[in-house]
Amino acid sequence: MGQLDDLLRDLVVANRILANEDVVDAYGHISVRHPDNPKRFFMSRSRAPELVEHNDLIEFDQAGEPVTDKRQPYLERFIHAAIFEARPDVTAVVHAHAEDTLPFGLIAEPLRPVIHSGSFIGGKVPVWDIRKKFGDTNLLVTNMVQGRDLAKCLGPGNVALMRGHGFASAARSIIEVVRLSVYLPRNARVQMNAMLLGGKPKPLSKGEIAARAAGYKPRSPETWRAWEYWATRAGCADMIGEPHDHTANK
Amino acid sequence: MGQLDDLLRDLVVANRILANEDVVDAYGHISVRHPDNPKRFFMSRSRAPELVEHNDLIEFDQAGEPVTDKRQPYLERFIHAAIFEARPDVTAVVHAHAEDTLPFGLIAEPLRPVIHSGSFIGGKVPVWDIRKKFGDTNLLVTNMVQGRDLAKCLGPGNVALMRGHGFASAARSIIEVVRLSVYLPRNARVQMNAMLLGGKPKPLSKGEIAARAAGYKPRSPETWRAWEYWATRAGCADMIGEPHDHTANK
Amino acid sequence: MGQLDDLLRDLVVANRILANEDVVDAYGHISVRHPDNPKRFFMSRSRAPELVEHNDLIEFDQAGEPVTDKRQPYLERFIHAAIFEARPDVTAVVHAHAEDTLPFGLIAEPLRPVIHSGSFIGGKVPVWDIRKKFGDTNLLVTNMVQGRDLAKCLGPGNVALMRGHGFASAARSIIEVVRLSVYLPRNARVQMNAMLLGGKPKPLSKGEIAARAAGYKPRSPETWRAWEYWATRAGCADMIGEPHDHTANK
Amino acid sequence: MGQLDDLLRDLVVANRILANEDVVDAYGHISVRHPDNPKRFFMSRSRAPELVEHNDLIEFDQAGEPVTDKRQPYLERFIHAAIFEARPDVTAVVHAHAEDTLPFGLIAEPLRPVIHSGSFIGGKVPVWDIRKKFGDTNLLVTNMVQGRDLAKCLGPGNVALMRGHGFASAARSIIEVVRLSVYLPRNARVQMNAMLLGGKPKPLSKGEIAARAAGYKPRSPETWRAWEYWATRAGCADMIGEPHDHTANK
Repeated sequence: MGQLDDLLRDLVVANRILANEDVVDAYGHISVRHPDNPKRFFMSRSRAPELVEHNDLIEFDQAGEPVTDKRQPYLERFIHAAIFEARPDVTAVVHAHAEDTLPFGLIAEPLRPVIHSGSFIGGKVPVWDIRKKFGDTNLLVTNMVQGRDLAKCLGPGNVALMRGHGFASAARSIIEVVRLSVYLPRNARVQMNAMLLGGKPKPLSKGEIAARAAGYKPRSPETWRAWEYWATRAGCADMIGEPHDHTANK
Repeated sequence: MGQLDDLLRDLVVANRILANEDVVDAYGHISVRHPDNPKRFFMSRSRAPELVEHNDLIEFDQAGEPVTDKRQPYLERFIHAAIFEARPDVTAVVHAHAEDTLPFGLIAEPLRPVIHSGSFIGGKVPVWDIRKKFGDTNLLVTNMVQGRDLAKCLGPGNVALMRGHGFASAARSIIEVVRLSVYLPRNARVQMNAMLLGGKPKPLSKGEIAARAAGYKPRSPETWRAWEYWATRAGCADMIGEPHDHTANK
Repeated sequence: MGQLDDLLRDLVVANRILANEDVVDAYGHISVRHPDNPKRFFMSRSRAPELVEHNDLIEFDQAGEPVTDKRQPYLERFIHAAIFEARPDVTAVVHAHAEDTLPFGLIAEPLRPVIHSGSFIGGKVPVWDIRKKFGDTNLLVTNMVQGRDLAKCLGPGNVALMRGHGFASAARSIIEVVRLSVYLPRNARVQMNAMLLGGKPKPLSKGEIAARAAGYKPRSPETWRAWEYWATRAGCADMIGEPHDHTANK
Repeated sequence: MGQLDDLLRDLVVANRILANEDVVDAYGHISVRHPDNPKRFFMSRSRAPELVEHNDLIEFDQAGEPVTDKRQPYLERFIHAAIFEARPDVTAVVHAHAEDTLPFGLIAEPLRPVIHSGSFIGGKVPVWDIRKKFGDTNLLVTNMVQGRDLAKCLGPGNVALMRGHGFASAARSIIEVVRLSVYLPRNARVQMNAMLLGGKPKPLSKGEIAARAAGYKPRSPETWRAWEYWATRAGCADMIGEPHDHTANK
């Protein structure tokens, strides 16, 4: 298979993993940038991630609109379009409502990495409140102006919380954005419990976060180990190919 | 199939979904108003929702009694009869004991929508205490007088908590009352955690709640996406038909 | 089948249900009094409840010793023997370590029924601390003297917590002791969350508890509905027979 | 089979159990000392424990390096090597990130045994912070110097927490280190909830901990009961052999 085929296959696997690991339910989505045309990206049509198949994938343009496909796209495709526009370093984006991240969109204390598997969050996670600039909405990011405001809040970071709604996360590969999104709720739960038990838990230091970021590559044995594990649990181990595939996840 | 057949099929699916999503266990029930006779409604005989089949469905009259069926009905069928009586706009009713809604029937702070998927709760959720008017009972709603008192507490709203017992929810379609009932415990958990971490979490504004209510229709792609997903998880995807079926869920 | 056969069949089903509903894991057990000889009772040999089959059941005498069987019995069979001795009204006993009951064995505030499905707990649940009378032990009830001390703490009630260990529950039938034991951890979680959110949650009143106790019979449709549901979930629906079987659970 | 064959078979089973009981996910590992050469130990190559098979097992030397195998080992194999070096009494070691143990690595109050199944923790659990001696790292134990510092913190105990990372546990047999590791998160949750509800829960006394430690043997019926149960749940009951096998787990 070529690089694009591999990427789309990984995108299907990622949909299934995010569903099986309770990051998304019927709602939430993951996208990947086109490897040959950075102004385009791929994402499923409007369908629950657990059910997404190769044939559900749609190519989107820079404005978040399907290039040719007439099927119903996700309403919030502009989250993805805006982050890809603002962040040339980003290859994959997730938007989800993972339950245990939601309290941190409603309180003053920021979500921070407190466990090593949460280091990929980066530092303090900013909270974007759509009401601040757009007043009373249905909370969904339904156009590029809103998407760009969210992307601005994300800045150079890896994840932004969305008040009363969920989060958007971004990374340089599908595997990494999945890992970040799977461990984000776990970090949130640990921080929550530590806060309830004893005040402000010690976060990872900047040096620790940097050391961890430096040590991981998308297809290193340690990263691949989780990908294989999650895909097996999600029932699609047969789709993952080999760790040394020549994909954009290199 | 005709409209009634579609509705009864959806009612079976709804029973299975509510069980699979942990809204009900052996107890709890869902009903739908008769599409041709607004004084009648359908609900299963006394059986755990997970096990309900088409043949278990019974037609009830305005007083909450089976029209002709001799099998054992649910003791609390009067919750449904009374809400259908009081609320001509309502097509479907759920009564359940979902665990994480129960603390909010026991504390002073009201349950409120704090996440976008919880917006369908409406505003502050009232708590009905059967003891207030009926003294020491077995907590069950076992006659129309009690049912009407509960319906009065519900008022024009979508959900009422029942102290030490559970909740009753009402909506204009089966799909919507299921969605409301599935996301109600999630909203409760997020509010609970946010309260423990930091006081009173900011609820959705009235404008946001209204904007969300305006944006959803029972068979829109976004609503159907969840129905298909939940039915697949509950093992009855083969029963759901097509999103454009001519049912009362239009 | 005769009454004894029915009872032993129900005892196997009860083992599987308690395991599947997370009341027991590899540890914990359920017993039933001999229907023809009140000084005898039946319980599995030392085996994880999920795996118990008819052939694992052993007959025990009044002193908690196997009548003839040479296989390894549970170490804590004296819990059962002592409760059967002290309480002629009791037909079935459960001992388990269900996780969410354990905090209430470690704090001053007692576990109480706060939800209708928890009413079968009775009133305030006493906590038995083996250390008080027996000093440093392995916390297990390994002889009749300890068992009797626990039975004394239980008194005329339905359940006693055991500090740092678990609980013992007793009822007039297998179905009822299973129901009590399944809803006990749920009641504990609701009380726990309500306490964390807002102080002392209003418990059920004595009148409510009495009204609920009066309204349920072991084989009434409402009770049977749960038994059928739990057995189906535990994969042994084919073993449960009919609600009107002539068993001791009448 | 000989003793080594039995041990390696048990090591595979232990990997599957730890995964199925949520002690490990894609990360975390278990090792066993070579029965004939105490300076060697066995552990899987870099693979998710749920997927480990006999053929994945690698023999390691005293310095934590594979004796001959060229496949990728776990980065943190030095945890195991250093504990085997420091503790001749130890036969099996687990390192894992079980979520509910993590808050206790971030707060001042120590994790202690508060429930009988948690007695194997020993007493107060020490917390090792890699930052204290090694500054900003990726938090992983990637050499013998770090491993020895962790082993020093563990001392003669059974478990040490690792700040923001997980825990290391050690025991005289595979069965025991699995049991300890499975009940550790449960003990943590019970202590956490009891702390939130009412201050400092009463821990097990030293005498109780000693009495429990004295009463268990790796292949006693009570210990074996859990092993059989966990292996059945993990889908590998066919691999466990008989309780009286002549293995190092005697």
